[in-house]
Amino acid sequence: MAKQSFSSYKKLLAKMKNIVTLQSAAAILHWDMETMMPPRGIKLRSLQLAMLSRIGHKMSTDPEIGRLLEETNKHPEYSRLNPVQKRNLYLIKKHYNEQTKLPEELVAETSKQQAITIDTWKKAKAAKNFPKFKPELEKLFSLKRKAAEILMEVKESATPYDALIDIFEPKMTSEKISNVFKELKQGLVSVLRKCEASQKHPDTSILNRRVPIETQQKIAKVIAEFIGYDTESKKSGGRIDETEHPFTTGYYDDVRITTHFYENKFASAIFSLLHEGGHALYEQNLKPEWIFQPVGDACSMGLHESQSRFVENIVGRSREFWIYLLPKLRKIAGKPLSDVHLDDFIHAVNQVMPSKIRVEADEVTYGLHVIIRFNLERDLFAGKITVDELPQVWNESYREYLGVDVEDDSEGVMQDTHWASGLYGYFPSYALGNIYSGQILATMENGLQDWRDPISKGDFRNVKQWLVKNVHRHGNLYDPPDLIKIINGKELSVDPYLNYLHEKYSKLYDF
Amino acid sequence: MAKQSFSSYKKLLAKMKNIVTLQSAAAILHWDMETMMPPRGIKLRSLQLAMLSRIGHKMSTDPEIGRLLEETNKHPEYSRLNPVQKRNLYLIKKHYNEQTKLPEELVAETSKQQAITIDTWKKAKAAKNFPKFKPELEKLFSLKRKAAEILMEVKESATPYDALIDIFEPKMTSEKISNVFKELKQGLVSVLRKCEASQKHPDTSILNRRVPIETQQKIAKVIAEFIGYDTESKKSGGRIDETEHPFTTGYYDDVRITTHFYENKFASAIFSLLHEGGHALYEQNLKPEWIFQPVGDACSMGLHESQSRFVENIVGRSREFWIYLLPKLRKIAGKPLSDVHLDDFIHAVNQVMPSKIRVEADEVTYGLHVIIRFNLERDLFAGKITVDELPQVWNESYREYLGVDVEDDSEGVMQDTHWASGLYGYFPSYALGNIYSGQILATMENGLQDWRDPISKGDFRNVKQWLVKNVHRHGNLYDPPDLIKIINGKELSVDPYLNYLHEKYSKLYDF
Repeated sequence: MAKQSFSSYKKLLAKMKNIVTLQSAAAILHWDMETMMPPRGIKLRSLQLAMLSRIGHKMSTDPEIGRLLEETNKHPEYSRLNPVQKRNLYLIKKHYNEQTKLPEELVAETSKQQAITIDTWKKAKAAKNFPKFKPELEKLFSLKRKAAEILMEVKESATPYDALIDIFEPKMTSEKISNVFKELKQGLVSVLRKCEASQKHPDTSILNRRVPIETQQKIAKVIAEFIGYDTESKKSGGRIDETEHPFTTGYYDDVRITTHFYENKFASAIFSLLHEGGHALYEQNLKPEWIFQPVGDACSMGLHESQSRFVENIVGRSREFWIYLLPKLRKIAGKPLSDVHLDDFIHAVNQVMPSKIRVEADEVTYGLHVIIRFNLERDLFAGKITVDELPQVWNESYREYLGVDVEDDSEGVMQDTHWASGLYGYFPSYALGNIYSGQILATMENGLQDWRDPISKGDFRNVKQWLVKNVHRHGNLYDPPDLIKIINGKELSVDPYLNYLHEKYSKLYDF
Repeated sequence: MAKQSFSSYKKLLAKMKNIVTLQSAAAILHWDMETMMPPRGIKLRSLQLAMLSRIGHKMSTDPEIGRLLEETNKHPEYSRLNPVQKRNLYLIKKHYNEQTKLPEELVAETSKQQAITIDTWKKAKAAKNFPKFKPELEKLFSLKRKAAEILMEVKESATPYDALIDIFEPKMTSEKISNVFKELKQGLVSVLRKCEASQKHPDTSILNRRVPIETQQKIAKVIAEFIGYDTESKKSGGRIDETEHPFTTGYYDDVRITTHFYENKFASAIFSLLHEGGHALYEQNLKPEWIFQPVGDACSMGLHESQSRFVENIVGRSREFWIYLLPKLRKIAGKPLSDVHLDDFIHAVNQVMPSKIRVEADEVTYGLHVIIRFNLERDLFAGKITVDELPQVWNESYREYLGVDVEDDSEGVMQDTHWASGLYGYFPSYALGNIYSGQILATMENGLQDWRDPISKGDFRNVKQWLVKNVHRHGNLYDPPDLIKIINGKELSVDPYLNYLHEKYSKLYDF
């Protein structure tokens, strides 16, 4: 660090601190809305959130930020700023330029249309009626396209869609993704075919045995303890609450996760908790010294997803994890699970089976769901297909990639909330997360040869510390392509992930 | 209503809506801090709340409000505004004038000093060490005095202390309070002496029988149902959460209450719930059409307290309420309470007994605790006593009024959070609430002769509807002295409350 940073730089950081503080307050209001709020509070809550978002936008586009950035650039001490300080300035400038380029009217209109489109989506999905959804989706898509075209210039992206991808995965492009997803698809289909051809198939009926919610809540505590998400201590305890769609939110010392509990799908709570736990560990272990600075954020949605899927799948669906957890599960659940054998159970939670619903997909087919969405988004923004054609192309893709027939659009093109919420360019992050997690695993296996054995004893500390040191503590110091190179020594590559899948599933399916 | 209100008036209301929306968001963050937040989240939360309070102050002192007020006053349509609209303008102007007169520095310094004084109070209270608390209390008191002197001019109050009282109880003065508290003291002491002289005393050991928390939570639901605070329905359900110090917060459709549960003090949860329920009913039943308008608020802290104490004491400690609740309590709690008789129980929850702690005081002695605090505040602001002398004067007053010896300052002058929080002028509201509740009861008994009988059958609807119509729906249309006259036809008067106490306790204590 430069011993003494100068006043305009400090003023910029103070402004960032205010913006982050406001956003963290809005995050708690969002969390409350999903977990605690009486349903009829929704009208007032919408007003509160819209107001905080307006105030936040105003703070983010305060012309004083522009002036301070200029002043800082011209300052004689500028060249003596250290890389962390320079990264902060880069991120502040990027965010400011983007935010100020978007006309306020467009921002307001988009946020209004989003609310309408989500509402219509819910109704249309329930009614299995895409034509009802279509006009509102078209309006939102066209607003998002306008924003994408504006951002494309600021971000110097090759296409509008690239500009949207950059929001979630900086410096990633649709071309790079297309290439890497082509390889990914090949690899996934190859593993899938081998699993399908195997004679060995799991009995997944174990997973539908009735396990009372109270039992599942006890299991949840064991898992929280395993990952080091301390729920007991009054001083540092993290929250675990219940929502239909599990999520992680919060900032530094107040990160919160949710999960869901279904009596006849007890494993669902376990994997949701591990998944959100992975996200939470990332957020909780960002560098404390960087709190409130742009560099103190997580790197990208893809990296975030790499952490959740690492903990959920690479750890949580491993043999070693179940050596540890199954006896506890048997003990706590008693009769419903007393006759379950380790090998049967591990295979059951790792069943590979093409399906129609992304969020229920296994590790092997999950990527295929994501690739389909990426292709559709890319072609939609390139004008190769229209909103009108989405259902047809969707259904054809599912037949081609997964061999399944989509019977109605509620289990097809309308299954996810992302497009109704205006989150175009977000989907690739899910598959990129898997790819990153493979590269992270490959590096970890070099440094921590014996990482599996302690897991079977319930000891996750080594792995966690490794992730903290090698992933979390970098915060947002690098863009994803640089970070993955720093971690793995290599550019983005699907090979480690595919190798991991091949090794794991060849054992499970005997190929 | 004027058919068409004009633009400057509408703009003012829009500004008020923003301020209220922001305040309601801050209220949820406060609630979360007390109920849900992991303790280590406190640092971030303090920043969030300080930021929202800064933004709120800025919105409240926006010079545009001043300009719009002037424009509205001069508008040719001004005289055609209806009383509700004129009241809105009056309240907007009052609030704006007061807020703008307080220098921002003083506001900021006070809020900083408050945090320090509260923190010191907690430590000093635990250490039973007033001298530790004293210097920080002096600093806060002197800042509050400065604010009071400024507000005194704007509010045209006779003394600085009067200006502070006016914040919580508009148009109330220390002179009026002194007079009415003199009568109140006489009346309370007279009832107290008669109770003390009686041969009949309750056995309160029943109240210390161990009732498991789970049982108490079931009872809490019965009480919530009784007052019509719906906790079950997904659509309109209100929350009941647990905090050491019960409170009510929220706005219109999202009002929330808390209570506490102690195994060996089960009645405490019941009366806390009834008390907070009384507050909640008031907030939930403000006029829906007036949401976001100044006139849509509750009238004053005293009126608020009248509602909580009406439900807690006049209803909740009545014979009829226990005719209804005791069988349920026996049924739900089983053995610990199976041999409890109605008469014994009613007397136990209405025991009159001088004590040192205000929040544990009975209906008769409660007012004496409040009067002591009022006298001390008044004399402090008049310069008749110093902060240094507070413990001595406190202890002398307790000996004189209640005949109890205060052994250390943690159960004496340091027992309440109010002075450490800068809430001078708040205490009188508690006793005024009792006085108002007596006048409200007197009017209700004229209109609803048969209000007691349905209560014994668990039917609170008539009473509730009466309170909604005669108290809640007036919102903040009148200042307290006018409202109580509208309700009761008379000025503030202690007689109805003293009559109520006399009638009730003469039966319980046979005098």
